[in-house]
Amino acid sequence: MFAAEIERAAREVDASIRAGINVPVPKDPGGGFTHEQHKRNYRTIFAAGQLYRLTGEARYRDHVRDLLLAYADLYPGLGPHPAQANQTAGRLFWQSLNDSVFLVNAVQGYAPVRAALSAADRQRIDDRVIRPMAQFLSDGSPEVIGRIHNHATWACAGVGLAGYLLGDRELVDKALLGLDKSGKSGFLRQLDLLFSPDGYYAEGPYYQRYAIQPFAVFGAAIAANDPDRRIFDYRDGILKKAIRTTVDVTHNGHFLPINDAMPDKTLRTEELYHAVAIGYAATKDPAFLSIAKWQGRTVLTPEGQALAADLAAGKAAPWNFGSRLLGDGPEGKDGALVLLRARPAIDGPLLVAKNGVQGMGHGHLDRLNWLYSDDNGPVITDYGAARFLNVEAKQGGRYLPENDSWASATVAHNTLVVDGKSQFDGKWRVGENHPARQLSTGLDGPTRWSIGAIDQAYKGVAIRRALVMLDVDGLAEPLILDLLQASSSGRHVYDLPLHFSGHIIDSDIEFARNLAERPVLGRAHGYQHLWVDGEGSKAGKARLTWMKASRFYSYHALPPAGARYLIVESGANDPAFNLRREPALIQRVEGATDASFVGLLEPHGSYDASAETVVASSARVAALDHRRVPDADLVIITLADGRRIAVAVASDVAAGTAHRITLDGRQLGWTGPVGRFDLAPAGAKK
Amino acid sequence: MFAAEIERAAREVDASIRAGINVPVPKDPGGGFTHEQHKRNYRTIFAAGQLYRLTGEARYRDHVRDLLLAYADLYPGLGPHPAQANQTAGRLFWQSLNDSVFLVNAVQGYAPVRAALSAADRQRIDDRVIRPMAQFLSDGSPEVIGRIHNHATWACAGVGLAGYLLGDRELVDKALLGLDKSGKSGFLRQLDLLFSPDGYYAEGPYYQRYAIQPFAVFGAAIAANDPDRRIFDYRDGILKKAIRTTVDVTHNGHFLPINDAMPDKTLRTEELYHAVAIGYAATKDPAFLSIAKWQGRTVLTPEGQALAADLAAGKAAPWNFGSRLLGDGPEGKDGALVLLRARPAIDGPLLVAKNGVQGMGHGHLDRLNWLYSDDNGPVITDYGAARFLNVEAKQGGRYLPENDSWASATVAHNTLVVDGKSQFDGKWRVGENHPARQLSTGLDGPTRWSIGAIDQAYKGVAIRRALVMLDVDGLAEPLILDLLQASSSGRHVYDLPLHFSGHIIDSDIEFARNLAERPVLGRAHGYQHLWVDGEGSKAGKARLTWMKASRFYSYHALPPAGARYLIVESGANDPAFNLRREPALIQRVEGATDASFVGLLEPHGSYDASAETVVASSARVAALDHRRVPDADLVIITLADGRRIAVAVASDVAAGTAHRITLDGRQLGWTGPVGRFDLAPAGAKK
Ligand SMILES: [Zn+2]
Ligand SMILES: [Zn+2]
Repeated sequence: MFAAEIERAAREVDASIRAGINVPVPKDPGGGFTHEQHKRNYRTIFAAGQLYRLTGEARYRDHVRDLLLAYADLYPGLGPHPAQANQTAGRLFWQSLNDSVFLVNAVQGYAPVRAALSAADRQRIDDRVIRPMAQFLSDGSPEVIGRIHNHATWACAGVGLAGYLLGDRELVDKALLGLDKSGKSGFLRQLDLLFSPDGYYAEGPYYQRYAIQPFAVFGAAIAANDPDRRIFDYRDGILKKAIRTTVDVTHNGHFLPINDAMPDKTLRTEELYHAVAIGYAATKDPAFLSIAKWQGRTVLTPEGQALAADLAAGKAAPWNFGSRLLGDGPEGKDGALVLLRARPAIDGPLLVAKNGVQGMGHGHLDRLNWLYSDDNGPVITDYGAARFLNVEAKQGGRYLPENDSWASATVAHNTLVVDGKSQFDGKWRVGENHPARQLSTGLDGPTRWSIGAIDQAYKGVAIRRALVMLDVDGLAEPLILDLLQASSSGRHVYDLPLHFSGHIIDSDIEFARNLAERPVLGRAHGYQHLWVDGEGSKAGKARLTWMKASRFYSYHALPPAGARYLIVESGANDPAFNLRREPALIQRVEGATDASFVGLLEPHGSYDASAETVVASSARVAALDHRRVPDADLVIITLADGRRIAVAVASDVAAGTAHRITLDGRQLGWTGPVGRFDLAPAGAKK
Repeated sequence: MFAAEIERAAREVDASIRAGINVPVPKDPGGGFTHEQHKRNYRTIFAAGQLYRLTGEARYRDHVRDLLLAYADLYPGLGPHPAQANQTAGRLFWQSLNDSVFLVNAVQGYAPVRAALSAADRQRIDDRVIRPMAQFLSDGSPEVIGRIHNHATWACAGVGLAGYLLGDRELVDKALLGLDKSGKSGFLRQLDLLFSPDGYYAEGPYYQRYAIQPFAVFGAAIAANDPDRRIFDYRDGILKKAIRTTVDVTHNGHFLPINDAMPDKTLRTEELYHAVAIGYAATKDPAFLSIAKWQGRTVLTPEGQALAADLAAGKAAPWNFGSRLLGDGPEGKDGALVLLRARPAIDGPLLVAKNGVQGMGHGHLDRLNWLYSDDNGPVITDYGAARFLNVEAKQGGRYLPENDSWASATVAHNTLVVDGKSQFDGKWRVGENHPARQLSTGLDGPTRWSIGAIDQAYKGVAIRRALVMLDVDGLAEPLILDLLQASSSGRHVYDLPLHFSGHIIDSDIEFARNLAERPVLGRAHGYQHLWVDGEGSKAGKARLTWMKASRFYSYHALPPAGARYLIVESGANDPAFNLRREPALIQRVEGATDASFVGLLEPHGSYDASAETVVASSARVAALDHRRVPDADLVIITLADGRRIAVAVASDVAAGTAHRITLDGRQLGWTGPVGRFDLAPAGAKK
């Protein structure tokens, strides 16, 4: 693997050498020529520097030098970037974030060649590129580096790496402790506040991916230059936990699309090549090697070299993709992200319950949302971000207006919408003050669960949701039981959307369809983006079945009596064709005070297109019943073969509380919030 | 590979042995239990018979015997299948086609064990299974076996294989020459009429895939049992050509979705494992080995064993995916299917021009349609069939009503619609009489083309279309130029749809959008299934850019003056959610007599999601001009760097005619229908 990395980098750098130095005056926004050229340049500087370290060939040293000397000509004369967005302007790029990334890469490429340059060249590059960039990103941008935010982490990493390179303790200390060196901001403070004790990043998986690179790279530099800091042991090993959790919050290598997120981001990215190599160096845990194997790539640094060698030596062990409770918030007390997995496979069935914090400006109004993925990819989905990253024609690759109006709205998620409005009335800054609560979690055994709640998302409405993943004998895939309960003294419209991926096969709901003219569902809070394809109702349990790739999925719903069902699709009021068009089912109850929505997702059957065979295209769940018993809700799932699975969810979530109910004259007892009873078919032998 | 095949088959057969014999009374339609079980059984009989041949282990012999004895109990008492569709009913299956497939497989599995059975068992199976099945499929079903159609080919193969097995010359002759042995029907006549001289199958690639198995398997049996027939040399080696062409009419292994076709069918199917193995045995062409390598599978027959051995010995050579002119119709004179490829890669750029026959009952009303695919998959698309194969909830997996009302309609294709109606007024039987004409084809060099025409698709309207694939220096992908011309003495509405795959990025057409209520485009001929998202116009060249995976595609249009543009999407009037929802651009001209539509597809740029880099997201084509010069149309493409490419398409399609025109005072001359002139930017050095 490492030989291939060297070869790839040599090919690219040699092409860059042949093409000659191209350091244009900054002009274009993201996706435009000068933007992309400066990105290419920092990649080239990084790669050529590593190649010089690895090969000692002069042309690599000279190319790093020539590039940086060209920047020495250009950089000191630059003012704010002409295409600056509403974000803070950079010098080389439209936002200073990209300038930080430039510096992080440039220092890593410059370091291996610096001692081999003439004193004059070295000084010119030090004084006209590295130091002024570090100055701009530190004292020159206090409003960036002083934040507790991934942009600040990139700035700290750039400034700190520059400080170590130049032997400038002042820069290093500002990076570590903030411009005033008080420790109220800076890298260490970010480590304190941006990760939960479980290593979960405040903004969610997509930004965790992005932030992990500067955390890991600067962390490794601190370990190398300031070994006494024992940075990898800091805060109970938070850096190592953060790297591990970055891997955990993926499915089939894709980062979970929570908050503003692009769905195509995987572990196969530059950030994760760095993080995995550094994680392995810091822990020697051979599970990192199997992730590197999946990535198929690594970085040219010494850490990457060591990792590739151990992987080639056959030392890899599987990564344990297990169920996880990731406490959210700096102290881990602001709710949680819960991952329930049925198997340790990288693409195995995964239920995600999002019961944590808002996630700052990139957070969505999606408390108590859930997602489900399996080897077909996402099944119960989150739209992610409305954005075409780096596509200039789409507003320069920036977040689009539909990111606010649709993607972050509550109705774009699989969680309760009250009175047609987003949580916190659509105000994310209000949401910042109100994490969800994680009431109970069960990670082990054939019945795994997450129970979360929030009372502040809607005034006067308490919402509680239990999600239970059930392994069932004879079913290849787990069942997902959802019990969502809203309580209020006032009357409300409750909408529970389910966004799914696949083609509708059939339903036992009689939909009145809008076949020849398609209206819009509402006017605001995301509803204006939903076309209504049909509306219907059904007494008792209803079913909607769809198909994705080789599998069928039946969603069984048992909403409050009188509920209606809406089939909708995103894409209305989208003048610039910015939205993907994706289906959802909405369960709607009007004028209710308390309401219980029981749902059951049943993956079933398979279709093998090449062999033209189908198995189990019909659902195996025949009935779904819900009853309130003293202090608990009891849901009874009846399978086609007559077996029944009773799931009891207690009101009291204490782990040690014993419960007892009577069902069909039988006494059933359990301890803790969730009990499960597999009942043989009536008349079967005991 | 072969060891893995044996292991896989042994695993499945051993599981079947453990499960015991299950030969249910026929009841269910496609996708239902009894249907799937009888399919499993014939697969098991086939595999167990081959395993017995390969291993000599008695349990395989006994399992074939026990299964067939169970059929001996069941079969003679069966009448027409209770779930018979409007197709001809089978005995074991809802259509006799499946019974034929059963017999083809059963004979292949029975043959290796037959001599090792007791005389009583052998006779019971011969007399109560093989012979009555062959009787039912021959004399018992004259309306099937007598046709010139793939159903008849399967019947002939079953009957003929049974005849060879039983030593029953009568059955063999009926299979080869028809029930009356006159040669007016039967296998040989099918070889004469169902393939063009280039080995292209009348119904199109999807059914070619399906039909090739009985053609190849029965062909191999004839070669083995009647070597004097020299069947592989019959009709100038039509069987070998047919197998080769079956591979050629794929893109990235997927069968081109022409006519009724499911898009998920690839070379990785049972039919093609047989065909490739037999093709290799008949030709020893090592290119078949690289196809087998791509398939990763083969059959357990002696042909599969020999192929796997040679593949393992490293004898594979690349398959030449080149440009091809596949004449259509039994004599190759009924138009053609033209494949223009830019590179010999299996997933390289491919333009398909469909200028051939109707394709019988599974044919679409799509004369002069075109498609384009590249390594992103289909880009300019065909809907294929409206069907969920074997999904019981979707009308038992049958073709859906939308297959007629949408999928086969002209407006669902990338070809001209006149006055809002499908070709031949929507009557495919009329279409059977009117193939398109292939006027000229150029397969080689940097400028490749296809020119086709049809005058009978719409009364009084002559349509001619030239499609030209241009390799251009500095562009990674080819340009596709489209010049479609309609001529009529009356006034008409001309609609030219373009169905594309991807997300719209932007356009220079100002669309009036239907943002909050979405109307339907029309009432019939497929228009009732199109939602209208917007309508607009633009003087001169217009552009629509979309993005798919990592690439941008700009379509530049230069329709007649006054044309309007409609953005539409399939999915209206679809009560059972049977349709996929896919976008199209329609160019519309009203009240015109003659009309010329010039289009240019430009794939450009790339977006690397993991590295977050974009190149060339803007189109490189700056202008598109069209002028009529004496005896030719001249299209001038101007690139952003000022280069111009002039493409001249002559009215006279004779290959030897010399043409001469004047452009900007320069004389340009060429021979044949298409001339191309790359002109340096004005002012550039010559
Ligand atoms: Zn979201
Ligand atoms: Zn078609």
